[in-house]
This record gives sequence, structure tokens and C-alpha cells, in this order.
Amino acid sequence: MIRIEHSATPVYLQISRQLINAIQRGALVPGARLPGTRTLSTLLGVHRKTIISAIEELDAQGWIQIRPNIGTFVTDKPPVIKAAPLPGDLSQLARYPASTGYSFPVSVLLEREVSSPAKGLGFTDGQPDVRLAPFDKLAKAYRRVMGRRSGQRLLTYSDVEGNPFYRKQLADYLNNTRGLHIRPENILTTRGIHMGIYLASELLLRPGDLVVVGSTSHYLGNMIFQQARAEIRTVPVDENGVSVSALKALCKSRTIRMLYLTPHHHYPTTVTLSAERRIEILQLARTYGFIILEDDHDYDFHYNSSPLLPLASADTDGMVVYVGSFCKALAPGLRQGYLVAPENLIRELAKLRHIIDRQGDLVMEQALAEMLAEGEIQRYLKKALKIYRTRRDFFCSELATRFGDTLNFTAPPGGLAVWMEWSKKVNLLRISQNCLGKGLSIPQTLLFQTERLAAMRLGFGSLDETEIGAALDILERGVK
Amino acid sequence: MIRIEHSATPVYLQISRQLINAIQRGALVPGARLPGTRTLSTLLGVHRKTIISAIEELDAQGWIQIRPNIGTFVTDKPPVIKAAPLPGDLSQLARYPASTGYSFPVSVLLEREVSSPAKGLGFTDGQPDVRLAPFDKLAKAYRRVMGRRSGQRLLTYSDVEGNPFYRKQLADYLNNTRGLHIRPENILTTRGIHMGIYLASELLLRPGDLVVVGSTSHYLGNMIFQQARAEIRTVPVDENGVSVSALKALCKSRTIRMLYLTPHHHYPTTVTLSAERRIEILQLARTYGFIILEDDHDYDFHYNSSPLLPLASADTDGMVVYVGSFCKALAPGLRQGYLVAPENLIRELAKLRHIIDRQGDLVMEQALAEMLAEGEIQRYLKKALKIYRTRRDFFCSELATRFGDTLNFTAPPGGLAVWMEWSKKVNLLRISQNCLGKGLSIPQTLLFQTERLAAMRLGFGSLDETEIGAALDILERGVK
Repeated sequence: MIRIEHSATPVYLQISRQLINAIQRGALVPGARLPGTRTLSTLLGVHRKTIISAIEELDAQGWIQIRPNIGTFVTDKPPVIKAAPLPGDLSQLARYPASTGYSFPVSVLLEREVSSPAKGLGFTDGQPDVRLAPFDKLAKAYRRVMGRRSGQRLLTYSDVEGNPFYRKQLADYLNNTRGLHIRPENILTTRGIHMGIYLASELLLRPGDLVVVGSTSHYLGNMIFQQARAEIRTVPVDENGVSVSALKALCKSRTIRMLYLTPHHHYPTTVTLSAERRIEILQLARTYGFIILEDDHDYDFHYNSSPLLPLASADTDGMVVYVGSFCKALAPGLRQGYLVAPENLIRELAKLRHIIDRQGDLVMEQALAEMLAEGEIQRYLKKALKIYRTRRDFFCSELATRFGDTLNFTAPPGGLAVWMEWSKKVNLLRISQNCLGKGLSIPQTLLFQTERLAAMRLGFGSLDETEIGAALDILERGVK
Repeated sequence: MIRIEHSATPVYLQISRQLINAIQRGALVPGARLPGTRTLSTLLGVHRKTIISAIEELDAQGWIQIRPNIGTFVTDKPPVIKAAPLPGDLSQLARYPASTGYSFPVSVLLEREVSSPAKGLGFTDGQPDVRLAPFDKLAKAYRRVMGRRSGQRLLTYSDVEGNPFYRKQLADYLNNTRGLHIRPENILTTRGIHMGIYLASELLLRPGDLVVVGSTSHYLGNMIFQQARAEIRTVPVDENGVSVSALKALCKSRTIRMLYLTPHHHYPTTVTLSAERRIEILQLARTYGFIILEDDHDYDFHYNSSPLLPLASADTDGMVVYVGSFCKALAPGLRQGYLVAPENLIRELAKLRHIIDRQGDLVMEQALAEMLAEGEIQRYLKKALKIYRTRRDFFCSELATRFGDTLNFTAPPGGLAVWMEWSKKVNLLRISQNCLGKGLSIPQTLLFQTERLAAMRLGFGSLDETEIGAALDILERGVK
């Protein structure tokens, strides 16, 4: 008996599926003649057009044979893939093996943060609010591109380096907003910042090479450099960014291969690398021949009048590899990043990228390119900046009101996170656990606890003012 | 003077942009009062609503200040990012450096095929016809997912391993179509096959490890294994696939770490690995402890009644790592692939993937998952299979008619390419150049020329019957 239900599944599909099921379990045998569409329409109480759709579906799937003027019959060659099981006594293979039959190295370095997003309230390390992002426009642009013949060509194999039109728009955008002087050929599009750092690291670092990072620095970079078996050395970070004198001293005693910087807002402390230090570092790189890997993940959100341009804007000698993305500006899940470097390096990096990830999402790149060309992204960023400035101001004033002297922090000049140090002795892990019990997630990657320091990097960007209030209510109780 | 043109740019944007331009070049100075909207409407001859939109745009971008009941004024803080150039004598930096200021290894191994798609007629190594793919439905599903609140959550950081709903649907799909016995936890989603092979290779191979491939084998695998500094050894391939006796002999003299197979249709010759050999190879892997990397890139298009199930379907001991994708089934540009393995390996591979590519396109995965759940993909594949079978039959009959005894080939049991050996002495590179001159691209990666062999692997899938005819017309003339 065929049952029709009120459900999301169209009625014709409900019918065709039940007929298929009947064929599969042998209730309708091969060669059996199906009733006519009028009869079925009457029997099942549905419109004849629906029956015809169901029959067409069965035909498209190869379950029936329609003999014009004769009738419709269950095929004697059902379309199930009658794949032949491999010979041998395998019928007992009830389930897939629980583990591999060989061993392999298990990394302790690469342990990663909890990957699932918090269901309720939660702080991040500085993620944007995806609820603000212009998805309507993005989805529209995406569909528009896919609907064109030229868009379909983007779904064949194409340029490893990225969609040419996107690279052109991106070059203009980066030149306009970051004072770069690049051409599209200086860009390799990547899946977010991760792939940019990974590719540069894989190509440019040999085992034992020295990579210098600020103390403390972003865990992602540290993991990637260690994966390339580089040696990591740290230099202190103060209120003007990484210490140039420490870097200079290190240059004299060791050969540095790469310096990893997040100059716009140092990760995790959010301080800006001063203009003087930028120039000094560029000179040191020239003198000592080390590569500057400039990670500029949140350039777009700057609240003061004059952000400093990135080091890449003043790189006369090709010492800087610049990586950025739209993950902080729009949404982390978009995975749209870019790497900027002299053309000889881009060519080589593209070869490496080719064997890891043949090409990016060229349709999405085309959609973004059209939004850049139309100024949509730029307008969105201006609007979002206002909202994030308000959230930063609210978050900082609430922190001051609620925690007073127990918290030391400076309102960040940009970005979506605040660095805060506790002046009293606190156990951050216990605070985090207390908060989780009350419905607020503060992942461990946001906690920085040493013998002398108890600090947190809390992202305010993804929370509106009500949510900030609720989160701080819980944090206040969690600290007690 | 403001000019309004008939163009794709909305009139309000044309107006706001020209006003911005006037502000930027100083024609409208800070503090200048703008005419009222009625006046502007009359002056420019456009509807007042359009003027209001233009004014709102200027306001949103921060170019003007609206003082209620007083007037609208050009702001004295224009919103251009007045980023401070770094100090020092950098004004001469007219263009970006042409090359890096440091050296790095340039790979000859990783030279890749020409990446831009041929503009006109061209053979591939077996790509699908993207014109057939269900983009309307895909774009619709994509937009539907993005429009939901739950879809926006897919744009935050989420599971490295892939969208959970997609992994569930994919597990069902693979179990149903390929006789696997897996759970969603056995799947890591990847960017096409490339990333699957790369991740497995990076994690499982150490420098000097022995990887066995068929002679000849896919260039992609060879590049990736060599990038991991593995040693590659070949075993012959005959009409039943890779030679098991050669493999067995090698097992006795050397420790094999990995065997790379494309058993469904060997690349490039398209032969199917026989059932008996599959079982023997699984037994050898168990006995000698080597990993089988099973690349099943075109399982979906099989023209005979009973395709053999993959080795992974009979892997009782966790020796097989199975990689596949929707790139051949739907479109190469989608970059939707998967890796199937025991859970302990998936966990470790996910850690590595995390530092290369934080997560896949979870929105696209959700769209595909919904299409799998609704049976859309499955229906599409059935329809496409019929078309590809017709193309294969037409292509093979044309080859036979046109080239007769000069070409030896067997109609492939599946996939989208034909392997053909020339019985007379020909210079493949010259044929390829001749054809290119006449408008037909045959990339070098499709040519297999040794002292004893002149063969081509020509993909027919992306060409309809008219195009196949036109392409073979040119090939016929190119051979002469």
C-alpha cells in the first residue's frame, strides 16, 4: 500500500520511492505491468500529473520500461549497481576495522583547539560576527556567477594561482587599502591564512632553520613551523611590538631564516608594531637576509584615524611574504585568503599548492571579485567597523566598571579582541570551567597563564551588546 | 557636473560615486553644504528617492554628516583610510620588487600541466562535461543553506573533518554504492583527491620509504610521493591491472610502505584490476604490512553491469586508505573529495589538515549533503551515465572508422577516457602541435611516448558528439 504523507518530500517522490521499494523487496516482480496513470490517480487519490511525474522519475532512474501503446513494465534489469563483492570469505565483514593495521607517528604538537563551535554563549579569540556578514549579496553573486556559461568554465580545471579577475580586483583592493604596489601576478589565493603560512613554511624552511617569533606568538604559526622541523626562538614583545634590540642581538649570533610577525595587532596582546621598528626590521632583514612573514589577519578593522601600512608596503627588496584573508573581515568559514610575494616565489608556491589543493573555489572568488568591483565588500566593512567600534567601546567600559583594578587592559586600536591581565592571582582554567558550567565557553586557547602572568584574549566581535552583558555576568560570577 | 549613464551601475551609485570623487579632488570641500534632495532631484532630473539613496550611501560610507533640521555637509573627517606611510625615503618605491631578496629551492619535480583551460576544442585526461552538471540545483541548494540561521553557523569555525551531516550522507552513499561498511567518523572531507593523497603521504611516508606504483601511473601521485622524499618503484601493468607476481617478488626483497592503486580503471590505461588480484593484494598487504592507497577517482561512471567493489570494501585489517571525490562525477572545480580510513588515522590526518586548511567549504558540503539525501546526485549520475555511455560508444566507433588498424584500443569499461596505442611510428609531440595549430588542444600530459610505445589517453567526456567529430577531424589531419 502506498502511503502519502504531509512532509517536505514531494508527493511524486513519495510514490516513486515506495514503488522502488516494492520492486526491491520483490512485491513488484520484473516484467510486472503497472496500472495506468488514470487508474493510479484514482487509487491513490492524487492528481494524474503527480502520477506522471512519479512514473517519469522511475523511468529516469531505470526501474521501469515504457512501451508506447502497450504499457509500463517493471524492468527485468533493475538499475541498482549490482556490484560484485570480492570473492573469498568476506561475508562476515560486519563492520569496518576500528584501527589501522600499521603504525604511524602521532603528533602531540598538532593538538588543536576544540573544533565545534560553542552552542551557546562563547568568547572566541577575535572572530567576526557572521550574522552581520552580507550573505544575501554573496549568495546572490554566487548564484549569478554559476548561472552563466562563463561561470561554468570556472568549474573546470583552471589557474592554480586563483581566478584571474579576482586576483586583479584583489591587487587593486590591497594597493588601495594597504599601500601595496603589487600586480595580480604577485598574488596566490589560498584557503585562509592557514594555507598561506603552511605553503611558505613548507617551501622556505628546511629542518633546523631558525624562525623567530614574538613571545608570546600565534599557536598556528608555531605549529606549522615545528611541522617543518624548524627551530623556533622568541624575542620579547612590549607595548611597541616585538623587541628590535633582541632581534638585532640574535641576528649577530645566529642565522635567522624567517621572522614571523603580526604587526598590525600582535597576537595575542593586540599591540601595534611601531613605525620606527617596522623600518628597523626591514633594514635588518635586508642586512641579514631573513624572510619576514607578515600575517595581517585583521587589518580591516582599525578604530583610530591612521593605521600604519604593513611592512609589505615598504618592501623594496623582496624580503616580505604577506598573508591575509577575508576570514576575519567576512566569515571564517569562507576560507578565502591570499599570499602576496614577488613573482618568482608565487610561481614556486603555486607548484606546491597544486599537489595539495589543485585550485581554490573559483566561483566564490568570482563572486567576491564582483563584490569588490562593485564596492560591496568595502561598504560592508565600513558599516561593520562602526558596529565593532561600538562593541569594543561597550565591552571595554563594561570590563572597567565590573572588574575595576583587578583587570589591566588597554582598549585595542583595532581587531576584535581585548588582551587583559589579571592583577590578582587567579586560576584561569578554573574560571573557564566555572563559566562553562554557567553557559559561557572560554576555550583554553584564550588563556595565558604562567608563573608571573594570568591573561586572557577575549574576542568581543561575535557578540552583540546584550550578549556581551550576559557573558560578563557569567564571567563575574565565574571569577568569584 | 554629475553625469547619469545607461549602465549596469544603479543611478544612485553613479551619483554617490561622482560626489565622492568631487570630495576627493577637492571640488566639494569639507564643511560644504549639499543642496537639498528636492533641489538635487530637479537639478539632476532623477527621482527624489534616488537622490535619497545616494545621500544614504554617502552617509553609510562616512563622507557626509547629516545634521537634522540644519542640513547635509561634507564631513571634515573623510573616511579614506589615511594610512600613514612608513617613515624613511620610500617615496621612490614605484613598483613591487621583481624577485625575492633570498633564495629558495626550485622544484623540477613539481612542474605542472598548463593550468588554464583550453579556449576552444580540447581533450582532457578524462574530465566530465561541466555543462551537464546540475548547477541550477546546486546553486539553489547553496543559497538555501546560506539563507538559514543554521547555515550561517557553518561559516564560523567548525569541524576540521567536515560538515557532520555531509559525512553522514556520504557514509550512507559510499556504503550503498561501493559496498563499504563505514561510519561518518571514518571520513575526512578533502579538497578533491589531491589533498587526500597529499595528507596521507605527508603523514604516512618518511624520507626513503618505498612506494610502489604501476608502470605507468598517475603523475599526481608520483609528484606527491617524491615531495615526501619517498623512493618510488614500479611494477608492470597488464590487461588485469598491476602485476601481483612482480609485487610479491618485491615484497620479498624490500620493505614496502605503500602501494598506490587506481584499481577501478588504472590510470592511464583504464584497465580494471581483476577480483582475484584485489584479494591477493589485500593478503599481501596484511602479510607484509604495507598500506594500500586506493584512488577511486571515477568509480561512478561504469558502463558494464557489475563493477567490482573497491578493495576498501573487503579491508578487514585496516590496510586500505580510500580516496575519492565528486570532481569527476560533477565538476573538477568543486574540489569536493573525501578520504576513508580507520578512525585513528582520520583523527591524525585531521590534525595535519588543520594547519594546512582549517576546514572545508561547509556550506557547499551541506548543499551536497541535502542533494544526496534527496537523491538528486544519484539521479544526476544515472542520467549522466547514459550520456557518457553514448559518447564513449560514438567516440570508439569513430576512432575505429577513422583510424582503423593504426590505432589499438579497447572501449573502456568505465570512466571518461580511452587509452590508445599507435601501431605505426608517430611523433606524438608533433601531432599535438599540429592539432593545436588547427584549434585542438591535446596537452602533453595525455601523451605517452617511449622507444617502444606511442600512446595517448584521450578524454571524451567533456565533448558532445559534434565536438567529438570536429576534434577527430583535426586529429586525423594532425597525424598526417
